[in-house]
Amino acid sequence: MQPTVEDVARAAGVSRQTVSNVLNAPERVRPETRERVEAAIDRLGYRPNRLAQGLRASSSRMIGYRLEPVHPHALGSIHDRFLHALADAGRAEDHHLLLYTADDAEGEVAGAVALHKAGAIDALVLYGLHSGDPRPPALRAHRVPFAAFGRTGDDDGHPWVDVDNTAGTAAATRHLAEAGHRRIAFVGYPPGSAVGDRRAEGWRSTCAALGLRLGPDLRGEDSLTVGAALGARLLDDPDPPTAVVVATDTLAAGLLRTVRGRGARLAVVGFDDTPTAAALDLSSVRQPIEAAGHAMIAALLNPPPPDATRLLPPELIVRGSSSTP
Amino acid sequence: MQPTVEDVARAAGVSRQTVSNVLNAPERVRPETRERVEAAIDRLGYRPNRLAQGLRASSSRMIGYRLEPVHPHALGSIHDRFLHALADAGRAEDHHLLLYTADDAEGEVAGAVALHKAGAIDALVLYGLHSGDPRPPALRAHRVPFAAFGRTGDDDGHPWVDVDNTAGTAAATRHLAEAGHRRIAFVGYPPGSAVGDRRAEGWRSTCAALGLRLGPDLRGEDSLTVGAALGARLLDDPDPPTAVVVATDTLAAGLLRTVRGRGARLAVVGFDDTPTAAALDLSSVRQPIEAAGHAMIAALLNPPPPDATRLLPPELIVRGSSSTP
Repeated sequence: MQPTVEDVARAAGVSRQTVSNVLNAPERVRPETRERVEAAIDRLGYRPNRLAQGLRASSSRMIGYRLEPVHPHALGSIHDRFLHALADAGRAEDHHLLLYTADDAEGEVAGAVALHKAGAIDALVLYGLHSGDPRPPALRAHRVPFAAFGRTGDDDGHPWVDVDNTAGTAAATRHLAEAGHRRIAFVGYPPGSAVGDRRAEGWRSTCAALGLRLGPDLRGEDSLTVGAALGARLLDDPDPPTAVVVATDTLAAGLLRTVRGRGARLAVVGFDDTPTAAALDLSSVRQPIEAAGHAMIAALLNPPPPDATRLLPPELIVRGSSSTP
Repeated sequence: MQPTVEDVARAAGVSRQTVSNVLNAPERVRPETRERVEAAIDRLGYRPNRLAQGLRASSSRMIGYRLEPVHPHALGSIHDRFLHALADAGRAEDHHLLLYTADDAEGEVAGAVALHKAGAIDALVLYGLHSGDPRPPALRAHRVPFAAFGRTGDDDGHPWVDVDNTAGTAAATRHLAEAGHRRIAFVGYPPGSAVGDRRAEGWRSTCAALGLRLGPDLRGEDSLTVGAALGARLLDDPDPPTAVVVATDTLAAGLLRTVRGRGARLAVVGFDDTPTAAALDLSSVRQPIEAAGHAMIAALLNPPPPDATRLLPPELIVRGSSSTP
């Protein structure tokens, strides 16, 4: 007969839960107790087998996550923070993340389907959603449970969590208006992405609400060089704006390079509060990524009621790039 | 009787290996073939069970990885790139990463021991090693296989992979000497860390080999504000150096803020080639992180011969911060 958790608990003089904690969340157990339980485990030859537990419970307690390649121009850290928040939230629920890579969205779905069929994951975390994203319907068709960080516009069929992007650029615009700016421009990526369109909308609607003239609305791909070029277009405008709300820190960093290189004055607020924003003294809208990660795990393990608040407010971090009018 | 892989292969008219690819690396299989195999799987009711396979093979095919918290001052991307390289290398070997979090090194070891005992991981990836690191001996004592990215000075008992940090700052120093600099300073973190000491050594030995006078050797914790303060000390030196090799991009970014804020001339080379380096036009030494990730997985799955080359050369990326003498 194999020894059981109960045998170990009795031998160590602790509860079944304490044995479980030693196995699954050892940092919650005092070192002396942990040593006593580990000694009992060794003495009895107890071998808890998570794989066997998984088979019994029909649950691997693993959540799949496709790790995207690191884009050389991305300023990073958002992704690091999200992954850490997911892993941390999973730990509290005794779930872990399984990382995999794929070449594209189709490969991401195929990988998740294979891992789910094989019992290696219970569910998947989706992120980077866009309108018309093929992944949600494909995962539904293969009955792979998932939760989405972000929305596609057709999100009734699955749990999701999102950051209120409109509120982020609205806060940036109000901040600039309060500093005395009366003509505020916007720089973002091309129309058609849900996130980008909401960031533009926060700027536009806030300017309208405050009775401000709209500055130029310039778009381009999310890179330093495009940001630098769009910055030049703003400065060369016959009636240049005095401030600009920028949809990403990458575009804002490029734009700042032009502004500072020319010694020009233009207040700038970016989006994402990447480490580069701090290095450049760039004001930026910070996404509540830690809260989003925890909300994602909660949504996966305990699907939220339909009226649950899943739209999380971002926070404006003010630095030197926008503090002089 | 449960249908087997052979049954599926026969029904779909493909090899056993193709069925395995559809389950484990579907992106390697042409869509038409994949659909045929998936149809056969559905028709026969075949349910490959990775957990059951794991029990048979005594292998979860999972590699543990403790995800460290994201430091607010870290410029990121090194970690993102390492994780992606590990996941990508694991994919080719049909292994996946299991992410977990822990409060400290002791919790990291306890977590790995618990996961290994439970059969959830076969081995662990260790990184961020330092001299006297308690983790290698603790993992050995608990018989958890691991490979280390980095060295502690006592590394004979386990496979390791490292970047040649000395070669990185040596290349930076040679580059500055070739641009005409005759007195080159060093800014790094306090003595006592293996990585930091090797980066200082590459600067010092190269200056000696080229017959250059050593500039100031300043140390402080790895942050923007410390970098800015050390930059001011260099500029205020009675005999200021014309160039500086900096042990991290974070320190270099702080230093550049002071240099550019004062309109001073000082050639600067950082280390890590973070995205911020590109944003700041900062020359930097790039670690071969992708190669390191692949070498780590290879070391775990096929322990290397004792004389294998595990010290990977970094690459100097030259940008504007060091291109004017």
